Amino acid sequence: MAKVGIIYYSRDGNTRKMAHLVAEGVRGEGLEVVVKRVEDTNIDDLLKWEGIIAGSPTYYGGPAAPLKDFFDRSVKYHGQLEGKIGGAFTSSANIGGGNETTILSILQMMLIHGMIIRGTSRGDHYGPVSIESPEERAKKGCEELGARVARLVKRLSE
Amino acid sequence: MAKVGIIYYSRDGNTRKMAHLVAEGVRGEGLEVVVKRVEDTNIDDLLKWEGIIAGSPTYYGGPAAPLKDFFDRSVKYHGQLEGKIGGAFTSSANIGGGNETTILSILQMMLIHGMIIRGTSRGDHYGPVSIESPEERAKKGCEELGARVARLVKRLSE
Amino acid sequence: MAKVGIIYYSRDGNTRKMAHLVAEGVRGEGLEVVVKRVEDTNIDDLLKWEGIIAGSPTYYGGPAAPLKDFFDRSVKYHGQLEGKIGGAFTSSANIGGGNETTILSILQMMLIHGMIIRGTSRGDHYGPVSIESPEERAKKGCEELGARVARLVKRLSE
Amino acid sequence: MAKVGIIYYSRDGNTRKMAHLVAEGVRGEGLEVVVKRVEDTNIDDLLKWEGIIAGSPTYYGGPAAPLKDFFDRSVKYHGQLEGKIGGAFTSSANIGGGNETTILSILQMMLIHGMIIRGTSRGDHYGPVSIESPEERAKKGCEELGARVARLVKRLSE
Repeated sequence: MAKVGIIYYSRDGNTRKMAHLVAEGVRGEGLEVVVKRVEDTNIDDLLKWEGIIAGSPTYYGGPAAPLKDFFDRSVKYHGQLEGKIGGAFTSSANIGGGNETTILSILQMMLIHGMIIRGTSRGDHYGPVSIESPEERAKKGCEELGARVARLVKRLSE
Repeated sequence: MAKVGIIYYSRDGNTRKMAHLVAEGVRGEGLEVVVKRVEDTNIDDLLKWEGIIAGSPTYYGGPAAPLKDFFDRSVKYHGQLEGKIGGAFTSSANIGGGNETTILSILQMMLIHGMIIRGTSRGDHYGPVSIESPEERAKKGCEELGARVARLVKRLSE
Repeated sequence: MAKVGIIYYSRDGNTRKMAHLVAEGVRGEGLEVVVKRVEDTNIDDLLKWEGIIAGSPTYYGGPAAPLKDFFDRSVKYHGQLEGKIGGAFTSSANIGGGNETTILSILQMMLIHGMIIRGTSRGDHYGPVSIESPEERAKKGCEELGARVARLVKRLSE
Repeated sequence: MAKVGIIYYSRDGNTRKMAHLVAEGVRGEGLEVVVKRVEDTNIDDLLKWEGIIAGSPTYYGGPAAPLKDFFDRSVKYHGQLEGKIGGAFTSSANIGGGNETTILSILQMMLIHGMIIRGTSRGDHYGPVSIESPEERAKKGCEELGARVARLVKRLSE
């Protein structure tokens, strides 16, 4: 059965809240989903999931070091994640505070693994951004990201 | 029938050569492909193609203005390119001369259209880069990009 | 006398408003400033200015084609803008709508010219972003950008 | 006396070699320079240096996690690095392997600190890239980066 894994790093809880909203979007498409703190995630988990969504607060315009470290270690499976579906989200303190570069850094790690990603023509195009705690706009964006990834997982695993 | 369109801007001929190599990769997967100079492309063409691959020389770390202008005008069909498959390539004068940022700028335009893109775990991860005229490494990367996009078009149009 | 030039492209007027707010920041530091639509700017102007600030609406995650075209043509003076001071700003429809990538694309064009740029530890770090018409936060950011570039121009032209 | 600090992470030794070449460029401009592994660097060191240059291998299109972690912890001094001069370099396995995005990720961290950076109109525009061990082209780029940062430190500390 197709599975989606959501990995996040969170200190203030904003990114954690986003992770669970993204999970709702996945569930709404009827797919099984796992939400895990990056500290509790084993890189072996990456092999099991067909969709991988990662979230981080915006730290100096990029993903927090624990998430970067996780992806650095994923080199062990370099080549084996080809064709999996990816997505990214971030929480940030400022509108122009490095949130897009954080999301794009995560998406770039996924592209380098040969993964498949998708943007959206509405809202936050690269992936949902929450300024502080997720309000209505960010909530909707998170659910849409989950649904978007889930639909692509379903189509590609037929 | 599934179709892939390759749009390029070229002044020295290097990006044009790459476009035709990418086309060979598409054809190798049995898909019909059209190669067009951006000056000869109508934005209406975007609606007909299921895969859209765009190439440009690296000009100041981004796509040449005629290609940017083409995508700016594509706003007429904003929302209607959702779910199409994209890819990008560039020719550059220097190794660190802005070629990755050029490819990523093109991929970002596609993500903003809601398109689907895919990286590769081998070689030029975001898309093929040719330093001057495409040599063996870049040739292979171009053909692989064409094949990669074509395979995804086939899987998603089943 | 040290001079700063502000070049912008604007269709809805939001980027134009930002340009004039940035100019106030420059004037507040006692420097002469020129504000010009990119359509009215000659690339020769770049040689006269010690500070160059460029603004654009966010179009598909990058600068509008007329601004990109201007920088593409600036290749005529490649190497002659070394050491000049740069800055960038954008107006956007969405928070995660490609505004950071637009500003970074402009800053990358400046770095490729060998120019000097500076971020800020407060607010919009790479350069001011206005969501639609500039409100209080964006206004302050624009004035600070102008002041920041002007101060650097003064220090480096002593 | 003006000082430049070079921080690097290296596993294969390529980035370490680059760090020492950058240091030669700084010394050639008559400035004192310190070269340190990121593991041996204290974030307090950042306060002492007027120029800060950071290097990393290209890991999934971004800086290695230990360097990212170092910058994440530098938040302790957020606002206190305003106006310092920065620069970045990377070693990579492939031409289009994520090296530009790695350098830009480091430069973005510096911009978010309010630091000043400078590109170059020749060679690797954002910062030197070495494909595997630094050959002649990369060596020259490293020395030029060191000299570029050193000259800016001297001009701004007059």
